[in-house]
Amino acid sequence: MPKILIEISARHVHLTQFDLERLFGDGYKLKKEKDLSQPGQFASTDVVALIGPKRRLDNVRVLGPCRSHTQIEISRTDSYFLGVKAPLRLSGKVIRSGAIKLSGPKGEIDLTEGLIVAKRHIHVNPEQASRFGVSNAQDVKVMIEGPRATVFSNVEVRVDEEFEAAIHLDTDEANAAGIEMEGEGEIVK
Amino acid sequence: MPKILIEISARHVHLTQFDLERLFGDGYKLKKEKDLSQPGQFASTDVVALIGPKRRLDNVRVLGPCRSHTQIEISRTDSYFLGVKAPLRLSGKVIRSGAIKLSGPKGEIDLTEGLIVAKRHIHVNPEQASRFGVSNAQDVKVMIEGPRATVFSNVEVRVDEEFEAAIHLDTDEANAAGIEMEGEGEIVK
Repeated sequence: MPKILIEISARHVHLTQFDLERLFGDGYKLKKEKDLSQPGQFASTDVVALIGPKRRLDNVRVLGPCRSHTQIEISRTDSYFLGVKAPLRLSGKVIRSGAIKLSGPKGEIDLTEGLIVAKRHIHVNPEQASRFGVSNAQDVKVMIEGPRATVFSNVEVRVDEEFEAAIHLDTDEANAAGIEMEGEGEIVK
Repeated sequence: MPKILIEISARHVHLTQFDLERLFGDGYKLKKEKDLSQPGQFASTDVVALIGPKRRLDNVRVLGPCRSHTQIEISRTDSYFLGVKAPLRLSGKVIRSGAIKLSGPKGEIDLTEGLIVAKRHIHVNPEQASRFGVSNAQDVKVMIEGPRATVFSNVEVRVDEEFEAAIHLDTDEANAAGIEMEGEGEIVK
């Protein structure tokens, strides 16, 4: 099978335009810093703090564009650090997920849900899905080579016309598999 | 294959008696809090701080008994947090490993080596090694089931009369595989 780019998702936040304005002020627009691998998605220069019962994490990046649901993605390491419950969920599945307080320069929000540890997943477009022999919502295995060689199961395939092939792991997964910055993996049957 | 206990190694410190006294004072003896799974090994109530160029980590547990080499085991997450280089090494292989400053109640030590990210490993005694069909220094694969099911390669087998069967993962590995507190794994060929 061909090698697929692995990207590491550090902790980050997606906001609705409504929540963005509650945190950054009326009419605020995210300031784009750089484009991400998935077309249209970008990292902004804007950051918020996550405030848990045990500790806080500052300088957590807001990604754009704004979405229809506010969602905070952290690692399991982060959830222990903050002292919060964060269920393992595919991105977008925020109903009855974890609670967290967000703090921005112009306000705070006590979220009752929206906090998750993201389920590992692969972005592909339909042509790539066909080439790799995978389909939307399928769980596949991904093999990573190197000193900390690992096979991750339950990597969910997400197919969309807008996607470009990329495996997304969080920082715990990347560290456990010995990946720094970027890596590559292979779908195995 | 039979299931083997998985234990999670949080960041910790092993000290020589000499370094223990530099940090805690002349003639100091570690205060045992509880026995660990490997016979003779124990967690003490004593803690030190790890001080890196970027940040510090307080309350890092000292394990006992004292050893012939001082060794500090952290996760890759910790090495980024501290801003230090920590090579992936089997416990005990500290020559030309990473540098770190230790701080205790009675002194500080600037270590030029001793800092590692521990290579994942399995403790077994000779009878267990024979039963599992593995031998000392062999790298094996360990399968972990669950929502974050994972197969870790390059898990090094360590055989000693004093050992009891246990797989040791660090916190990044445990989090990536969805293990909380303790788990179980299976050697796969």
